[in-house]
Formats: sequence, C-alpha cells, structure tokens
Amino acid sequence: MRSLIPRVAALLFAALLGVLAGSATAAESDWLPSWNDGASKQAIVRFVRATTDPASAQFVPPPQRIATFDQDGTLWVEHPIYSQLVYCLERVPAVVKQRPELAGVEPFKTVLAGDREAIARLPVADLLKIVGAALSGMSVEQFQAEVNSWLATARDPRWQRPYTELTYLPMQELLRYLRANGFKTYIVTGGGQDFVRVYSDAVYGIPPEQVVGSAGATRFGYDKSGRPTLTKVPKLLLNDDQAGKPEGIHLMIGRRPYAAFGNSDGDRQMLEYTSAGSGARLAMLVLHDDAQREYAYGPAQGLPATRVGAFTQSLYEEAQKQGWTVISMKRDWKQIFSFAP
Amino acid sequence: MRSLIPRVAALLFAALLGVLAGSATAAESDWLPSWNDGASKQAIVRFVRATTDPASAQFVPPPQRIATFDQDGTLWVEHPIYSQLVYCLERVPAVVKQRPELAGVEPFKTVLAGDREAIARLPVADLLKIVGAALSGMSVEQFQAEVNSWLATARDPRWQRPYTELTYLPMQELLRYLRANGFKTYIVTGGGQDFVRVYSDAVYGIPPEQVVGSAGATRFGYDKSGRPTLTKVPKLLLNDDQAGKPEGIHLMIGRRPYAAFGNSDGDRQMLEYTSAGSGARLAMLVLHDDAQREYAYGPAQGLPATRVGAFTQSLYEEAQKQGWTVISMKRDWKQIFSFAP
Repeated sequence: MRSLIPRVAALLFAALLGVLAGSATAAESDWLPSWNDGASKQAIVRFVRATTDPASAQFVPPPQRIATFDQDGTLWVEHPIYSQLVYCLERVPAVVKQRPELAGVEPFKTVLAGDREAIARLPVADLLKIVGAALSGMSVEQFQAEVNSWLATARDPRWQRPYTELTYLPMQELLRYLRANGFKTYIVTGGGQDFVRVYSDAVYGIPPEQVVGSAGATRFGYDKSGRPTLTKVPKLLLNDDQAGKPEGIHLMIGRRPYAAFGNSDGDRQMLEYTSAGSGARLAMLVLHDDAQREYAYGPAQGLPATRVGAFTQSLYEEAQKQGWTVISMKRDWKQIFSFAP
Repeated sequence: MRSLIPRVAALLFAALLGVLAGSATAAESDWLPSWNDGASKQAIVRFVRATTDPASAQFVPPPQRIATFDQDGTLWVEHPIYSQLVYCLERVPAVVKQRPELAGVEPFKTVLAGDREAIARLPVADLLKIVGAALSGMSVEQFQAEVNSWLATARDPRWQRPYTELTYLPMQELLRYLRANGFKTYIVTGGGQDFVRVYSDAVYGIPPEQVVGSAGATRFGYDKSGRPTLTKVPKLLLNDDQAGKPEGIHLMIGRRPYAAFGNSDGDRQMLEYTSAGSGARLAMLVLHDDAQREYAYGPAQGLPATRVGAFTQSLYEEAQKQGWTVISMKRDWKQIFSFAP
C-alpha cells in the first residue's frame, strides 16, 4: 500500500487534467494559435461550442462526435505529386526484382529507365498498374515494414524533409482541439488505407482503425510453415474518393460526421453528406492560395492542378451556396509548417 | 465560480472511479460472477493479468488491446434460426407491397403463403434472395428505422422475449471486464453489419464503428428534393465469415486481435489469425452443450446444426491442438441469461 497512495494521487491529478482539458478549458484557451482571427477560426470555435455545451440546443452527445479529414492537400502537402505515388514509383525496382518478367513491360520499363519527363507523361491507367504492383503481393506485415523503411529515408524535393513532416500545423492544432472536445477524428482519404495506417498514429495521433481509405482486398491463407497470413491482393474493395467517401464512411464508421474537411472535388460528396445532417455541422475546404509558403492552385489561382485533386470553380460555387467555409492558407494561417516559423 | 467547484469535485470523483475501475481493482474484484471457477474463467483472468500488468513480459499497450467477438451463438442465441433471418422472412410482406411483381415469384410466394415447413426447406440460394430483397433498396436511415421497429415487437418463440434480451450474461460480463481493462471490444459477425449496428450499443455497449459484419454496398445519390442520400444496394462488399473474418478485421480495424471468441467453424480463421500473433493471446470457443437451459448442438451433442453455424469435430480437434479454450455452457456458466437465475 505504501507505494499505491502516491500512484493514485498521480493518476488522480492526470485524470483531473484530462477532465479539464476535455471540458471547460478546452473551449476557453486558444487551441488554434497558428490560425489568424477571422471567419475560418470563428466558424470552428462556434461549431465546437454549439456542439459541446450541454446547454446548447445543438449539443451532440460525445459518442456521435465524428470529424472526418481528407489527407492529401488537407492535412499535408499533395503538390506536385502525392507522396504515395512517389512511394509506388520508387518501389518499381524492388517489384521488378521480385517479378523479373516486368522489366521489359510498360510502364515498368519507363520507370526503370528513370526518364522523369516520360514518367510525368504516363497516363493514369499506367500509373494504376504501378500502384497495383507496388501495393500487392506481400503480407500485410511485410507491406508495413516496406512503407516504414521508405518513410525513414524519403525526402520531399522542395523542403528536403521527410514527407511526414509536411503536415499543416494549423490542421494538427484543429485535430487536437476537436479531440480535446470529445470528437473522434478520422482520416477519410482517396489514398491507400493500408499505406496511411502505417504512420497515422505517429503523425496525426489517429489510430489505424480511424483511417478510412481506398482499400485493396487481402486473402487469408497459410505460409510455407503453416502460419496463417493475410496477403495483399490487387483487387479494389473501396475507391474512397468522391461518392466513395460517404459510402466508405458508412461502411467503416456507420455514422454521419458532424464535421468534415477537404480541399478538392474528391471531397465534395463527403461535405454534402456531412452538412445534410441535422443540427450544427461544419464543412470546410482548404484553398491552396499561398505560392510562397506552399503552393497556389485551384480556382482563380491560374495554376493547373495536375496529378493532384482539383478544387474546381464549380466546387467553389457550391461552397458559397451551401455556406461551407473556405480556408485561405495565405490569410487564415499564421504558420503553415511546424519547421518554418 | 460558485457552481464550478462542486462540479469539478464531482468530475474528479467520477474520474477517480474510472481510473480505479480501469486499473488495480479491475483485476482484483470478480468481474465474472456468472462464471464457475474452472479452466475457462482462469484462462480469461490469466490473459487479462498478463496483458495489462506493466511488469508483465506480455504487457500490451492499451491502443493495441483489441478483442473480437462473433455474435450469433457466441454473444446471443442463434438456435434454431438466426434472428436476422427471421427479420428478413418477416419483412417479405412489406417488400412485396413495395415491389408487387415479387408476389407470384419464388421464394417470395412460399414465404407469403406462410407454410412453415416449406419455408424451413428453402435452399440457401432462395434464402439469399430474400435476404437481398429485405436488406436493400432503402436509405440507410430508413433501414435503421425498420430494424428498430421490428426489434421492439419481435419475440423469440421459446422464451417469449425480445431477441435483444437473449444475450449470454457471462459474455456480457466478459465484455465489460475486458473494457474495464482497456480492451476495445468489437463484434465480428457473419451477420449483416448494418443490422447489428442498429442495436450493438444498447445491447452490448459496442458502438456501431466497432461492428464488423457482412457488408452490403451503399450508393451515394440525391433524393427527389436534392438531399444527399445513401441507398443500400444488393451488392456484397464483405462476406464476413470464415476467411472473411480475418480479412474483415484487417479491412475495418487494421490490427491483429489479442483475444477472439467464437462458437463455430465460421470463426476458425479468426481464432487462427489471433492466436498466431506473438505474446499472450486468448482464443475461446463457446460449446452449446446445455439442452436444458439453452440448446445442445455441436461435436458429440448428437444434434445436427441446421441453419446455424456448425462446431464440427474438426474444429474441436484443432482447438485441442492449438490450446484454445472450449467454454462449456453447461459446466462453465452459473447462469446463462440475465432473466433466468
């Protein structure tokens, strides 16, 4: 018993901090220091107060507090090319080593030759062949090890940093703010579910079971020693983009979100589904309009969105009509990355 | 401030109770009063201690504590017929009202005629037609309302009680015991995911996002008033039975369970996958050997398992070989239902 009392006291203190963080103080102190005061920050704080204050007519019981975030372009950099696509292209030599018959076959031949311009011109159908080959044929554990090993050494060419450091600080603050207020935060990405699950906890504090993404099938079987194993197979179960996002949310979560965040036409249906619910709902779109600190592309930015999700003029108009908040990276964010004050 | 102090004190006290319930006391007091002392109860308590004691070599960090439960025959009665199948059969008149062209078509004709013996003889392919028609064609909200309304009035013929009361008290205790020790409890069922999600929270304390089941697709679209809607369509995305269970666990959770519970050959691969992990793992099978208090079917029970998952002799032998624990309802459970002491 001698050692139990200080332990209980410590637990109690930790619990008290947790309770306070989760209730009164969360709404009062500034959880969003990288956000400039303005319509975007106000919309977030107003939504959180309305849904968490027990006296509010729009109060939402904690188990129903679901918030969904697109990843590429919403939580981290997607320009000029999705990092998962870089992963798949850089896996090609290893894939061909395993399956030498692919060495002389397109598009693998072009990728192996390393001609950057030819690679950039590959049509989507060819990219899908590369993605399919890089993301299947191994056990789920082997795949996790391959992704981890790539993440440890791969660097974004512009910032010369690991891709996992290229997350937006204001969005990280928003994730923590929502969680401190009882929201369960999910990633809902067009990217590969198994890929994002490898790092989601370390990078965003989001556990693998709260990642919904485009999902390939696995096949249960036994390896040579008779050990049960799950092998990734090239069959798409869920294309988690556009209409696939609300469909994926229903499949994997089974509840309509109260808040949803995106940055492209691929997120349109998720935002529509979210904001069609009753009570207070928050739907926000990140607009990439800061060519200096990050990139500028999308409506009225004059930069064509190649290889990345497009924020079209039509989405911009729907946002206006529906009352969704468009976050201007340039005006709303004091700081974009934690490494670049 | 006047009202804040008692509130904080109350929260503090609640937090203290929570902390105590979650640590020391959970292992000490008896969370399993409906279990007789014996190998099954001992296996459970030993597993929980090994995985939650920070001093144990087999300690498992809380986020990794995943426990998966089959539903039919493991958490509640499945004999003589799955309640979801009863639901589908009883929905036939409403389905035919919506789609009158089915009235003269088999198997709907036989079901409408109400000939119990003919219904009992329907081949599986016909049952699947009925299931497909009863579980698709409506919005996800409409489906939830239909299931809720059925559950409120449907009664099991033997006990004359709502199906949701036919859960096994010892398994309810086990769910609470595991959760009190930081385990996240999931249902992994061959039954319909959307069906079980309607009542899982109320009946088992398991939220919808922790139900993995056989899942049909939905289609995102807009209703006549332009409101976004998800419609259930007759396309199977996940057949969550046998090999589909570990595959479904990977798809929906993305982590290997530390504990898994089943009662039939449909659970074999889930238990294999679970027990193939490193460290302490718990794999248990419920054996229905109590004809008096519930039913007796399965190996050496002499009762053919029609329309319900079979616990075959081969599964029984694998359990022995792998060291899985077989729970005898007759010997291990003091009480089976909360309503029948």
